[in-house]
Amino acid sequence: MYKYSFQNDYCEGAHPSMIDALSKKNTSQEVGYGEDHFCLEAAEKIRFIVGNPQADVHFVCTGTQANLIMLSSCLKPFESVIAVESGHICVHETGAIEATGHKVNHVKGIDGKITVPEIEEAAAIHYFEHMVRPRIVYLSQSTELGTIYSAKELQDISEVCKQLNLYLYLDGARLGSALTSAASDIQIEQLTNLVDAFYIGGTKNGALLGEALVINHDALKPDLRYAIKQRGALLSKSRILGIQFQELFKDNLYFELARHANQMAEKMRTGLINLGYGFQTDSPTNQLFPVLPNAVIEGLHEMYHFYVWEKVDDQHSAIRLVTSWATPETSVDEFLWDIKSIKA
Amino acid sequence: MYKYSFQNDYCEGAHPSMIDALSKKNTSQEVGYGEDHFCLEAAEKIRFIVGNPQADVHFVCTGTQANLIMLSSCLKPFESVIAVESGHICVHETGAIEATGHKVNHVKGIDGKITVPEIEEAAAIHYFEHMVRPRIVYLSQSTELGTIYSAKELQDISEVCKQLNLYLYLDGARLGSALTSAASDIQIEQLTNLVDAFYIGGTKNGALLGEALVINHDALKPDLRYAIKQRGALLSKSRILGIQFQELFKDNLYFELARHANQMAEKMRTGLINLGYGFQTDSPTNQLFPVLPNAVIEGLHEMYHFYVWEKVDDQHSAIRLVTSWATPETSVDEFLWDIKSIKA
Amino acid sequence: MYKYSFQNDYCEGAHPSMIDALSKKNTSQEVGYGEDHFCLEAAEKIRFIVGNPQADVHFVCTGTQANLIMLSSCLKPFESVIAVESGHICVHETGAIEATGHKVNHVKGIDGKITVPEIEEAAAIHYFEHMVRPRIVYLSQSTELGTIYSAKELQDISEVCKQLNLYLYLDGARLGSALTSAASDIQIEQLTNLVDAFYIGGTKNGALLGEALVINHDALKPDLRYAIKQRGALLSKSRILGIQFQELFKDNLYFELARHANQMAEKMRTGLINLGYGFQTDSPTNQLFPVLPNAVIEGLHEMYHFYVWEKVDDQHSAIRLVTSWATPETSVDEFLWDIKSIKA
Amino acid sequence: MYKYSFQNDYCEGAHPSMIDALSKKNTSQEVGYGEDHFCLEAAEKIRFIVGNPQADVHFVCTGTQANLIMLSSCLKPFESVIAVESGHICVHETGAIEATGHKVNHVKGIDGKITVPEIEEAAAIHYFEHMVRPRIVYLSQSTELGTIYSAKELQDISEVCKQLNLYLYLDGARLGSALTSAASDIQIEQLTNLVDAFYIGGTKNGALLGEALVINHDALKPDLRYAIKQRGALLSKSRILGIQFQELFKDNLYFELARHANQMAEKMRTGLINLGYGFQTDSPTNQLFPVLPNAVIEGLHEMYHFYVWEKVDDQHSAIRLVTSWATPETSVDEFLWDIKSIKA
Repeated sequence: MYKYSFQNDYCEGAHPSMIDALSKKNTSQEVGYGEDHFCLEAAEKIRFIVGNPQADVHFVCTGTQANLIMLSSCLKPFESVIAVESGHICVHETGAIEATGHKVNHVKGIDGKITVPEIEEAAAIHYFEHMVRPRIVYLSQSTELGTIYSAKELQDISEVCKQLNLYLYLDGARLGSALTSAASDIQIEQLTNLVDAFYIGGTKNGALLGEALVINHDALKPDLRYAIKQRGALLSKSRILGIQFQELFKDNLYFELARHANQMAEKMRTGLINLGYGFQTDSPTNQLFPVLPNAVIEGLHEMYHFYVWEKVDDQHSAIRLVTSWATPETSVDEFLWDIKSIKA
Repeated sequence: MYKYSFQNDYCEGAHPSMIDALSKKNTSQEVGYGEDHFCLEAAEKIRFIVGNPQADVHFVCTGTQANLIMLSSCLKPFESVIAVESGHICVHETGAIEATGHKVNHVKGIDGKITVPEIEEAAAIHYFEHMVRPRIVYLSQSTELGTIYSAKELQDISEVCKQLNLYLYLDGARLGSALTSAASDIQIEQLTNLVDAFYIGGTKNGALLGEALVINHDALKPDLRYAIKQRGALLSKSRILGIQFQELFKDNLYFELARHANQMAEKMRTGLINLGYGFQTDSPTNQLFPVLPNAVIEGLHEMYHFYVWEKVDDQHSAIRLVTSWATPETSVDEFLWDIKSIKA
Repeated sequence: MYKYSFQNDYCEGAHPSMIDALSKKNTSQEVGYGEDHFCLEAAEKIRFIVGNPQADVHFVCTGTQANLIMLSSCLKPFESVIAVESGHICVHETGAIEATGHKVNHVKGIDGKITVPEIEEAAAIHYFEHMVRPRIVYLSQSTELGTIYSAKELQDISEVCKQLNLYLYLDGARLGSALTSAASDIQIEQLTNLVDAFYIGGTKNGALLGEALVINHDALKPDLRYAIKQRGALLSKSRILGIQFQELFKDNLYFELARHANQMAEKMRTGLINLGYGFQTDSPTNQLFPVLPNAVIEGLHEMYHFYVWEKVDDQHSAIRLVTSWATPETSVDEFLWDIKSIKA
Repeated sequence: MYKYSFQNDYCEGAHPSMIDALSKKNTSQEVGYGEDHFCLEAAEKIRFIVGNPQADVHFVCTGTQANLIMLSSCLKPFESVIAVESGHICVHETGAIEATGHKVNHVKGIDGKITVPEIEEAAAIHYFEHMVRPRIVYLSQSTELGTIYSAKELQDISEVCKQLNLYLYLDGARLGSALTSAASDIQIEQLTNLVDAFYIGGTKNGALLGEALVINHDALKPDLRYAIKQRGALLSKSRILGIQFQELFKDNLYFELARHANQMAEKMRTGLINLGYGFQTDSPTNQLFPVLPNAVIEGLHEMYHFYVWEKVDDQHSAIRLVTSWATPETSVDEFLWDIKSIKA
């Protein structure tokens, strides 16, 4: 038996308040398909939270659905997406974007983040009809490497996108952890002016399932329900999504859950630093990438679940530790104790 | 305020036992993506229920997902599906199958059911490379019109499919209602030999969401998880599907819920007949299509939600009444009382 | 050995003037990709011929290319095409439109022609996001059954399309034969106001290959070169298309060739009527569908190539006879002589 | 007026023998669609030339068509292609492969050539259903940079593909130039054992248009005509392709034309070396990439057409010079003379 899994932030079910709400609101008869009272109210609450009364809000089940529906809705058949090569759509969605007919133009990025010069170059080198035409920039906040864009960085990217006639889309699977990071200087309301569309991830922040698409740009609003239905993402009993997002944005539960995950990561980070370990990427969110001796990793693997991320040298590898809304502080303490024991 | 909605069988949430189970099994750490203990056990239970130890079982969220994933996985780019024109994939999935690149060859059908001669003709007229090549037959049990295939009908279709090298796929969004209909002479185990793949609908039979794909034909088994992931249908917290299907097939809840819906429909049907009304289609399941005077329909619409299905003549229309696992007997009684009052 | 093939209008190569022009204009160095001098001049000539200085003109190799490029360029992912079920895109293009992701809504039609009420109904019944949204009407002039739309018919269809916010696209694979038919009351210039886009078929009217897409509606003009390239239809040595269309529209060769095909068909038709035979469809263009006794068909098949189109009764079938720009009058005479001999 | 265009190898029309043959074989009546006598005989001749009596041979109009038809026919929806990032399908086909639903996994390559370790890594890192599954390797001979694979290199790639269950496909747009290069140690017959499918480029080697797909692997043979038709690439008057390939492989014209292009390039290369210029890539085929002072490039651009390929430093750029079957020796001489004059 292992002691705890730090493998990801979706090992557990939902925060109990959401299960309770599902139970309490179970019997009313609703029209469903995203038009039940719960979804309508959750959408209105999200418009309030993000500070954009004109935003369109839709709920879908998975991040891959959110990405493929939104991106394919922005593009003509020959248009493409620009994204960093470590981006979720580039690697871990089994070619979902390409399956809708569109190329993703990979760029290198720095620490998992796309840069302004990369966007400019990608736009510049695709200049005529023998090539795809980039039309949207995809980025994640936080990124796959746990890093976050600063307000300044996002502002610069937003501006270059406007100049180059590119939409800007933010994958917020871990938006909660990014916004509540000690290193963050962005408020959720700022996204209204910074990006054309984004999604607020529920699954990785305490929901059973559910992601909330928020559309700011008017040109992207029409007909999204057609796209959601066509891709099999329109739930008849959509209450399951509406009710959970009502809970998440009542009394700031969403931010509390994310803050807890960050705090657990921070505790882990400090502990590892105190033990003399370094990190492959300097992440201020709920994903950590410590570099450990292989012997230590082996020892830990007998007690904990986590991914070995990358070989660093013959003696060391980076591992990925993910904390969540549900991670008990005792599990972090225990992990730090155990690694000390192994080391010794 | 209206008294009750007979508009569909997904107005309410889930049967309480499922919410309870979600609550009880909420905290264990699981790998997810359909490989948690709940999904594995639910899949094993379904293999037992359908009597096929070799079946592959996968869980997805919606019927449209089940259909588009399964059908597109069976087909080469130029191959097509044969279906009756009233079929769900032909009308009510926003071209989801075509969005995966495949034509659906529509045939007329009788009472919502595809016939052997129609399959033979569709196969015969598509004979060379200037045309699509039909490769799979799609049917629903029960159909969109509430009718069901008899064992003999399904056997004949199954045989002609084998002769013509066509796969046979059954959309079981309302399979529970079909199997527990008084008119049914099919047991679920028989599907193992009759069809190559099918899905057991959860959403329309008491689950919050969830459909269980069952694959019998070996050729269709490999790589389905790739297809599920690519279409955005692989849940990280798949426990929500596994737990519900565990409940549905523990102590035959699935069949009980369906039987209740049928009984409520039967009571409604008898009541309407006693009042002298006829039906557009003779349906033995949980969807009824009574033909009523327009004035009566108008009166009912002030108290109940339901679809007006089709104009019959200048004075009459057919309406659709759907009962569900959650329909209270009192609501049926009340409806029958009210219609009598209006009539009078 | 057979005497002659009436199987289709593309059995022979090109009218010699086109081969000659290819030979004469073979050596100049050109940029190609549709931007060589020949293509530019041919496009300008076509703008003059159709009377629309603002039209965009592009050349592609096949009718299927023209159709799939143009239709997929007009549609969002969930939008569909309305077409008669005998239409080329519905049957004889191996699902090319669906392969670009779009449903084709089939309607019955009358004599191969779509009707205003059918368009109205198709638009009306697709009214919300659970269904595809029809966005363009596809029709052929002449149709697959050799019939043609009158100016009045096309005018009415054009108007209903505008009312219903539908584009109108005309497949002109056999436009020459339609325009030069004795029964035609339409001039090519009228298409500018009647349809949003159409193509002028070269292959079936004397060219080796080549179809000229003409786009009238401003919304459909941008970016078509991207679509043409992406579908593999942008020829590097596009001169082969430009040179042929230069020839076709120099000195009215295009209309002369079509007129010849029609005259041969007319002669054939008169001859068959004089012999007492009737027709399945009354076609005023270069496709005829006479109904003959099966014994006569058998006898003819020893000497001529043609399709047996459809069984009429146990003793009779309809055959299809197609004449072309290249059909010698003597072959028609001989056919009529031979059928008389068989009959006797 | 400019003196000559070295911009590409498709500025001119066809070798006159092909125009002559089109003229001579113009009037026979043929069934077309790739089944006319000319195509059948050309296919048989190609089977003889490549030394594989079991090969399937199909003719299409463009390289993009050949690539998208062949690659999409090898792949399940979630499978991908591995290719070097400079590959034609990666850059210059407007996302044609992605438009059929498939991701292209880019690798760096060396001098435009894919390497065995890159293939091994691409296969290794895509190991489960959250990622696409690479299923085919795409390479070009010669490459976009004019380089060629040696027999040993191709043999090694072929072996690693077999080990890793990857198909191997060769884009032969410039196969003639590669095979007849002085640096080549591969005979065309060797391709039978080395690759699963390839195409022999006609357009860039003296044909008006036309590429011959050759399929060696039995698994890839069935149903290709369906794919060709569906993508709009099945010509009704396919004689235009068959006749040209008959000419190309009669009396070795194909190799002669390619050899001429190479000789012109070789002369150019020697001349430039004698003038003291170096090259960005060492190409033994008909594409050269000399590095020249910007002032020289400017001077040349007043007299000749060619692409400026890439900035090398502030004073120098690489240009691309392409010779063809039609390049006159005098144009090369003149170019060398003019560059000497500018330099002086």
